Amino acid sequence: MKPYAEMTKEELIALRKELKAQYREMQGKDLRLDMSRGKPSVEQLDLSMGMMDVLSSNDDLTCEDGTDCRNYGVLTGIDEAKELLADMMEVNPDLIIIYGNSSLNVMYDTVSRSMTHGVMGNTPWCKLDKVKFLCPVPGYDRHFAITEYFGIEMINVPMTKDGPDMDMVEELVSTDSAIKGIWCVPKYSNPQGYSYSDETVRRFARLKPAAPDFRIYWDNAYGVHHLYDHDQDHLIEILAECKRAGNPDLVYKFASTSKISFPGSGIACIAASLNNLEDIKRQLKFQTIGHDKVNQLRHVRFFRNIHGMVEHMRRHADIIRPKFEAVEEILERELGGLGIGEWTMPKGGYFISFDSLDGCAKEIVARCKKAGVVMTGAGATYPYGKDPDDRNIRIAPTYPPLGDLITATELFSLCVKLTSVEKLLKTMD
Amino acid sequence: MKPYAEMTKEELIALRKELKAQYREMQGKDLRLDMSRGKPSVEQLDLSMGMMDVLSSNDDLTCEDGTDCRNYGVLTGIDEAKELLADMMEVNPDLIIIYGNSSLNVMYDTVSRSMTHGVMGNTPWCKLDKVKFLCPVPGYDRHFAITEYFGIEMINVPMTKDGPDMDMVEELVSTDSAIKGIWCVPKYSNPQGYSYSDETVRRFARLKPAAPDFRIYWDNAYGVHHLYDHDQDHLIEILAECKRAGNPDLVYKFASTSKISFPGSGIACIAASLNNLEDIKRQLKFQTIGHDKVNQLRHVRFFRNIHGMVEHMRRHADIIRPKFEAVEEILERELGGLGIGEWTMPKGGYFISFDSLDGCAKEIVARCKKAGVVMTGAGATYPYGKDPDDRNIRIAPTYPPLGDLITATELFSLCVKLTSVEKLLKTMD
Repeated sequence: MKPYAEMTKEELIALRKELKAQYREMQGKDLRLDMSRGKPSVEQLDLSMGMMDVLSSNDDLTCEDGTDCRNYGVLTGIDEAKELLADMMEVNPDLIIIYGNSSLNVMYDTVSRSMTHGVMGNTPWCKLDKVKFLCPVPGYDRHFAITEYFGIEMINVPMTKDGPDMDMVEELVSTDSAIKGIWCVPKYSNPQGYSYSDETVRRFARLKPAAPDFRIYWDNAYGVHHLYDHDQDHLIEILAECKRAGNPDLVYKFASTSKISFPGSGIACIAASLNNLEDIKRQLKFQTIGHDKVNQLRHVRFFRNIHGMVEHMRRHADIIRPKFEAVEEILERELGGLGIGEWTMPKGGYFISFDSLDGCAKEIVARCKKAGVVMTGAGATYPYGKDPDDRNIRIAPTYPPLGDLITATELFSLCVKLTSVEKLLKTMD
Repeated sequence: MKPYAEMTKEELIALRKELKAQYREMQGKDLRLDMSRGKPSVEQLDLSMGMMDVLSSNDDLTCEDGTDCRNYGVLTGIDEAKELLADMMEVNPDLIIIYGNSSLNVMYDTVSRSMTHGVMGNTPWCKLDKVKFLCPVPGYDRHFAITEYFGIEMINVPMTKDGPDMDMVEELVSTDSAIKGIWCVPKYSNPQGYSYSDETVRRFARLKPAAPDFRIYWDNAYGVHHLYDHDQDHLIEILAECKRAGNPDLVYKFASTSKISFPGSGIACIAASLNNLEDIKRQLKFQTIGHDKVNQLRHVRFFRNIHGMVEHMRRHADIIRPKFEAVEEILERELGGLGIGEWTMPKGGYFISFDSLDGCAKEIVARCKKAGVVMTGAGATYPYGKDPDDRNIRIAPTYPPLGDLITATELFSLCVKLTSVEKLLKTMD
């Protein structure tokens, strides 16, 4: 089929009729499918069930240093869990604090602490007239939701295949002292699955912020979440790069085991310079006596070490790789060459990003919903839920079973075609 | 032996000599004992080891409503855990949000949210010139640490056997709109082990605060932590009483399973009116996708229901009751009738409170430390660590083995005697 833009009005009208018939047929199937969130599937969760067996009443719940994991104490996490997560985050275990079950919670708490107490001796943000964050777009809705909740002004920075537009980032960060942070998902980014290039990471580490309390919020959520065993993206480790660049305190790095073990029952952590960690610990000791050490120990006993985790992630990849490939095949088969959409083909992470013709995303998502397939809301990948071009849609292939996923993607493709035809016809009126 | 105050100078000098000899002997024993924190003992932790077996890889980790506990979601906790903790807190399950592993963390987050976003539409505290909390004294050091960390001015309110001085509470709360909260441990209070009388609870529920965003921070940490099976304190349930009094939104109630299952690996919760819960959820959804549901399920499968929990607490009591009794016996034997100290004899909770002669507490604790016994720091039971009379010492009998506890209490008694003699001699100079 030829590109829609090259069709005559008559051809488009005929096509619309045909597509509408197909859509009505899909509606008749009474589908109830969900492609909205980046959740692991049941098969993936089953991979971690062994975690329920590694600690039994016959086991000693004592750490290598003699700490009884069952009692109070140990503010920053047990040593063996620090070692495991440090290997996962590619940093020194001394540069880690282990938290509870959610890296989102760690990020929220980091912003909240900066609001009430400031960063390393600087003025608390709540005492400032204006605080701003840079937001590479499209990006992760829950990041943007945190900064919006705290009344922080968000500035869009376009994403490229190599990461955020660094010319813009450097210009803004170096001139505006109200800019206190930037949200980054540097590897297999949410939603595009892009990984920051070496040059991008180096430029991040060499930022010269006007604000002394500016920090890079480096959410390395998909650090070990590769789809392929050999063809993997590699990211320069940001803490080390910042140190080499003479900016050791510039970054907070976040991660968790949510999509490795169990989402909501994993362990999360922050990695940062010793100066930043001291600053964080000064607050943390008022917030808690310590996080869940038994669950930390459970993770260590289950994964044993980083190699065990890598092997485990391979099994995850075996389950989700066919799903990514199925979505990409259907999109190529249904939409390839039509000039009505572009999509990413990531080598890891949890999402595929789709860009429709301008002004079509909301309509496509609404059409999918009316036929029983829930997508992430259009606009969700932008601050304030406002995609200025109304074109980006996040596809989350992991959760549905493969059969459902195929049906859902076919419906999605149909909705893209139908909406695009109507859009093109409207421009002819 | 007669009261020290009735002794002549010569008698006191002779006594001092004798006590010093005893102290030197104790020092020679090279003790290393810790009575500083309210931690369960190893035997108590062993009671909950069955918790490690209730979820295995053969078990279904699905809730009664079909929720897979292993995946994302469920912001406020799974239904069956709400039922268990609601029974523990004596409230309707609809009035509960289950959090992570620490009620201290919940309290911290509650204050932090009030700072940045205010309470139910009122001005965020960080925008106010002055925020104050009432602090019944002696009280819990970690409560006071939170309010101090947020720059909240703390006002001491004397504790009585029936709870805080309610005349003072009513007067202050009704006239000063800067007063936004009061820290309460209403049952088996920390450190005295007092439980608020019916009248006290009723007067709390009928407070007429000048500030619409005033809340009672009701930390019912020891709600099911009785020492005796029949002789138990009973506390009027505060949420219901506030509702009856026409003040449904007046209170936040906190609790956790920290000293029931494993400290640091338990589950914590808040109970409050629906209005308050809505206010809290508006924030919570930005902070997390959900807390650890697998651990919630683990607690439900282990305790089954409130009766299982009560039976479990009986076994805790069997372990710690002899420790409380041993401390009380030694204090009575060594210090009874001497007029140099008073102590409480609680029927539950984790502490015994000791009041020395004025101006002696710091010296007593320092002397204990020099002989190898660590007590909670003198002053810790007061805001800013300042006991105006330097008399209150918190005794935590649960953690050390009984033999150690006896030795430590004997040393403590000796230090009380020696310090008191020196104090009395000083007044004679």
